[in-house]
Amino acid sequence: MNTPSPGWLAEFSPLSTLPPDERAILTGASASVALPADATVFEPHQACGAFLLVRQGRIRVYQLDRDGNEIVLYRLGPGSICILTTMALLAADRYSAFATTETAVEAVALTDTAFETLMARSGRFRSFVFTAHAERMADLMRVIRNVAFESIESRLAARLLALAADRRALSITHQQLAAEIGSAREVISRHLKTFERRGWVSLARGRIEVRDAASLRRTAGPGDA
Amino acid sequence: MNTPSPGWLAEFSPLSTLPPDERAILTGASASVALPADATVFEPHQACGAFLLVRQGRIRVYQLDRDGNEIVLYRLGPGSICILTTMALLAADRYSAFATTETAVEAVALTDTAFETLMARSGRFRSFVFTAHAERMADLMRVIRNVAFESIESRLAARLLALAADRRALSITHQQLAAEIGSAREVISRHLKTFERRGWVSLARGRIEVRDAASLRRTAGPGDA
Repeated sequence: MNTPSPGWLAEFSPLSTLPPDERAILTGASASVALPADATVFEPHQACGAFLLVRQGRIRVYQLDRDGNEIVLYRLGPGSICILTTMALLAADRYSAFATTETAVEAVALTDTAFETLMARSGRFRSFVFTAHAERMADLMRVIRNVAFESIESRLAARLLALAADRRALSITHQQLAAEIGSAREVISRHLKTFERRGWVSLARGRIEVRDAASLRRTAGPGDA
Repeated sequence: MNTPSPGWLAEFSPLSTLPPDERAILTGASASVALPADATVFEPHQACGAFLLVRQGRIRVYQLDRDGNEIVLYRLGPGSICILTTMALLAADRYSAFATTETAVEAVALTDTAFETLMARSGRFRSFVFTAHAERMADLMRVIRNVAFESIESRLAARLLALAADRRALSITHQQLAAEIGSAREVISRHLKTFERRGWVSLARGRIEVRDAASLRRTAGPGDA
């Protein structure tokens, strides 16, 4: 069990303002965790007692259906906490979420006991944990709105823009894009071909180039994919 | 502010085993709440400080898209707690859920202060609250799986069977059924007509009669709608 490098608390702003005695509990019971890319953080029916605080890198949380189709629920980046590890202990049988590192991840793991102590003792720690829960529920509600109410075309356009951000070319397969928006690979390939025909994107193996962001933006509409 | 009738704690089994001092906090800070059917319990951007424990009746929690299409997220019955009322305070702007009573509802409202006191003081109360959070997250994940991965036909068949339970005739409009499974009314009407043609249901205004449950069950498949 390695002690995290000093100053890690400053990366979690709600925690850095805790009084010294509560910060001492946090730092005294935390271990540094380093995970490579594509490592399993969480699987259904797998009990994991530690409470994870992400310092660097990105974790993808997703579900699989019985045919192995994936849908992305949310991502955790620096400053986030992974609530599934603690929640799963409570509603174990009903969970079907997986979590995998998308990049190398550095995290801090807090022991169960310290988590319980801080929940009992610190109103600010409780509010930090509850805020994370509320944000994850809001994430799930956003996924539901998108999947239930937005057309595949508008979700795909919104997703391409979000993933591209300020780059023009994306390294992503049609299968991965399907997971991002909860659809099937064939459906995504068909829509991408339509987008290409309209001159909005160029397609190559494992690569998509955005050529007309303005048209994609109009198609994406005011949604929040 | 009315005091709830004695013995209400026994209806929430995890709470009835709290030690006397913690039970005294609960009973001392709780008020009886009676709501008629179709009353608003919760709306986006509406701050509601109380923590609600449902004793009788049923609350429907749902989202609306910008065209007013509804999708049901989950229902709360006797013994449940409504976590949205507390969660919304934390992630206020990002929530888009509504809650409405489906029947007359009797509930107990706990003050914010008592909620905070018990969260600080009682490990069992915390576990009761976290379990409710975990169950609601599991509910949202189930909705996502259903909407993303199951065909409308299999979701509709599963929903008809679940709503009918041991009755044969359902009083429900196509619009309401659409909300149950996150689809549009026209889509539902088209599928219901197909079901009727196959002899699985009979349709009348505001009413659906199940005539071939076995075929509906085969269509519903092993999913968990």
